[in-house]
Amino acid sequence: MQAGLSDKISTAQNYEEMCSSLSHPKVFLFSLPHGSVPDTVLDGLEPYLERGDYIIDASNEHWSRTERRQGRMVTQDVHYIGMGVSGGYQSARAGPSMCPGGEYEALEKILPFLRKTAAKDHNGNPCVAHIGSGGVGNYVKMIHNGIEQGQMTALCEVWAIMKTGLGMSNDEIGDVFKQWDAKGELRDNFLVSIGVDICHQKVPGDESKYVLDLVKDKVVQDTDSSEGTGFWTLETAADLHVAYPSVAAGHIFRVASGFSNHRHDFYNTLGDSLAKPQRLAGPAVNEKAAFLEELRLATYASFLASYMQGVEIIQAASKKNNWHVNMSNVLQIWRAGCIIRSGHISDLLAPHYKKDNDANYRRIPAVVNEFKKSFQPLKTVVLGAMQADHVVPTLSATLEWVKYSTIPEDLPTMFQEAEMDYFGKHMFDLRSDPPGEPVTGSHHFEWKPPKGLESEWEKATKL
Amino acid sequence: MQAGLSDKISTAQNYEEMCSSLSHPKVFLFSLPHGSVPDTVLDGLEPYLERGDYIIDASNEHWSRTERRQGRMVTQDVHYIGMGVSGGYQSARAGPSMCPGGEYEALEKILPFLRKTAAKDHNGNPCVAHIGSGGVGNYVKMIHNGIEQGQMTALCEVWAIMKTGLGMSNDEIGDVFKQWDAKGELRDNFLVSIGVDICHQKVPGDESKYVLDLVKDKVVQDTDSSEGTGFWTLETAADLHVAYPSVAAGHIFRVASGFSNHRHDFYNTLGDSLAKPQRLAGPAVNEKAAFLEELRLATYASFLASYMQGVEIIQAASKKNNWHVNMSNVLQIWRAGCIIRSGHISDLLAPHYKKDNDANYRRIPAVVNEFKKSFQPLKTVVLGAMQADHVVPTLSATLEWVKYSTIPEDLPTMFQEAEMDYFGKHMFDLRSDPPGEPVTGSHHFEWKPPKGLESEWEKATKL
Repeated sequence: MQAGLSDKISTAQNYEEMCSSLSHPKVFLFSLPHGSVPDTVLDGLEPYLERGDYIIDASNEHWSRTERRQGRMVTQDVHYIGMGVSGGYQSARAGPSMCPGGEYEALEKILPFLRKTAAKDHNGNPCVAHIGSGGVGNYVKMIHNGIEQGQMTALCEVWAIMKTGLGMSNDEIGDVFKQWDAKGELRDNFLVSIGVDICHQKVPGDESKYVLDLVKDKVVQDTDSSEGTGFWTLETAADLHVAYPSVAAGHIFRVASGFSNHRHDFYNTLGDSLAKPQRLAGPAVNEKAAFLEELRLATYASFLASYMQGVEIIQAASKKNNWHVNMSNVLQIWRAGCIIRSGHISDLLAPHYKKDNDANYRRIPAVVNEFKKSFQPLKTVVLGAMQADHVVPTLSATLEWVKYSTIPEDLPTMFQEAEMDYFGKHMFDLRSDPPGEPVTGSHHFEWKPPKGLESEWEKATKL
Repeated sequence: MQAGLSDKISTAQNYEEMCSSLSHPKVFLFSLPHGSVPDTVLDGLEPYLERGDYIIDASNEHWSRTERRQGRMVTQDVHYIGMGVSGGYQSARAGPSMCPGGEYEALEKILPFLRKTAAKDHNGNPCVAHIGSGGVGNYVKMIHNGIEQGQMTALCEVWAIMKTGLGMSNDEIGDVFKQWDAKGELRDNFLVSIGVDICHQKVPGDESKYVLDLVKDKVVQDTDSSEGTGFWTLETAADLHVAYPSVAAGHIFRVASGFSNHRHDFYNTLGDSLAKPQRLAGPAVNEKAAFLEELRLATYASFLASYMQGVEIIQAASKKNNWHVNMSNVLQIWRAGCIIRSGHISDLLAPHYKKDNDANYRRIPAVVNEFKKSFQPLKTVVLGAMQADHVVPTLSATLEWVKYSTIPEDLPTMFQEAEMDYFGKHMFDLRSDPPGEPVTGSHHFEWKPPKGLESEWEKATKL
């Protein structure tokens, strides 16, 4: 027991003892491994629950399981709140960012307590608020983690460009991250700020070695069952038909990195790797300061891309599930305490979503201009990195997304649309038709009528 | 009623009339919209079903719903077979490729009939066979469609490079596709072969116009509820932790293309698009024949990437669900009649999976060498296309996947692993540890102990 807390903590041997020591209404808060464990806890608590008790599940749980438990508990008039919590293991001391979701009235009762322990933003406002109903508290935290994975993978690609592509030392890279964190588009960014510490950290007792240089490249958190939020984000985004390529590319790359056995299989069969990241050539070396500025903006473009893809997933899920998500509160919760916190992005978005909960970022000039400003730097970085055989799946997926998101007509997919109509009679719109929602086209062409039936089948053509 | 079939077809007004006209055991085959419709049909059939009847569901149904219906029917001793069918609407005449999954003995009884109607490969062997148990028939068809989406999107990116990047006419592109389809790595490839017809097709009655030039770029099949297999593939691959970036990038791009309203929003706010695909510069123009050869191999690399990603998803799902998938039979079913059929790829893979159902393609020199051969061409094409602001999400995702799949050590994710250990205590392996499965690392470093607790926390560091 640390820091003299022992007289503030009670222990109990079983559910009965614990529950009988609490007055009504009882409030439970737990953070457990996702899956069946919270069900086991509910089984144990159930005999001692009374009308009006509260259960706050702060696990990284799948939102659908939270909604199942909300349904189980509502029949007993017990309030079940699913609350995503972000901030890492040290946030128990520093104050976490918390997303509670569930019944509005129940949350009203609980929020005063949560506000005391939550992280505070630069104005002292707590990073906890009503998010919406149902399992949305877990859902929003899940998307937070999806954004985190897109951003963190982009950042590690950028780190490798500096390390191997520019031949910078750990300390030099740490200094660059420190500058990025201090001002501009990446200011007050948690992932960049801890990069400063990481790059400068030497091995205790051996000042000639850096801890970072000892770390293996296997990211296994998604496959070792400790964390589901990353791939759940990919699943829900696919289901909702939201474009999420930065988040997806980042997640898939990090998962693949965890299978170092597979990578060695490929390497051993080849007798070599197909790509060996090299020093970058040209402007990156000749005008290093200018290139580092482009690298900063490319990082920002990727961070903002993952963020906006996440915002759009939440908006689509809220609409589909009737959760009434308060986007302005989501953005407030993400202001401090959490892993994706980013001062500039919060300031950029907050006023627009406060004004219009259903804001479409594509119609917000301030947001769109950020992509305009960072497009050429992102392109320069991706091209330079690819030329030198660096691994940049997240940066390049972001570049491609920015391109196809802003081209209004004649994407390559017009050829795909023709192919699908050819073999599947999937119908198409005409190029002369106005833009609109993704609904089935009204034209079909009989590209290849069966022999002998040409005239009959051509009648079916609608051009 | 076409082609004098009327005396071979009986109609019935209701389930009772239909069922009483059939002798025992009755065999039903239907192809319906996925979702609740097959349940309604089962409700109607149920009173007339007898022990030993067969139901073959040839819909593009989600495998989990098929397994639910298999569970419902097995209690009545009725055999329910989920059978994926590929080949498009004209395959009713030409013979489709069919993947039946379910009870082994039931399939044995049904297969002789299916073999008669199935597509035949170049040796006259039917493209239908035992796949495995449970809902695997639908599952394998779903993955077929995921592969199809990865390949078709890559091909449309390649088409646009020829069209806009090289300034080729529709007829010239059609001629190139014809050469590709005739021999080499893309020979006997369905998607390429129909590209020949599509590029040459003029508007009936107006020889100055091409049908393709009239088609809008909106691919809406995934969002208009007519098709679920594409995003179901993304969901299952994410759940299984298989790297599927070519399939994912292709699917996400085509879905995004369907939201032309969003693209116009972005464009209208900007007053411009951020990228305007240009003519390619340099070798692509100066040595066009050589570049077209590189383009062919880049196309092949992307096709093979989607194919192998799909194979790996099936292997992982089979292991997880205990389906005993016969990979050799899957490859036989994909030999002809279906959309992803590809003579060279089938010949390349068949002997290896026949010898070893659990073959790991990374250990097959013949497969690995295909990626080696196509790596530089793919890189050249992606770099040239990106330089000229073409949209190449699938080609570039494939290039990145090939790179990170073959680099055995020191991927950029070593920095990510350090970040996650910093804020989440996620543990890491040491660079000096041998390669292996993705399991939780055994080292943690206290990167930033709380003030005043440095010495206590540092004890927790395991380096």
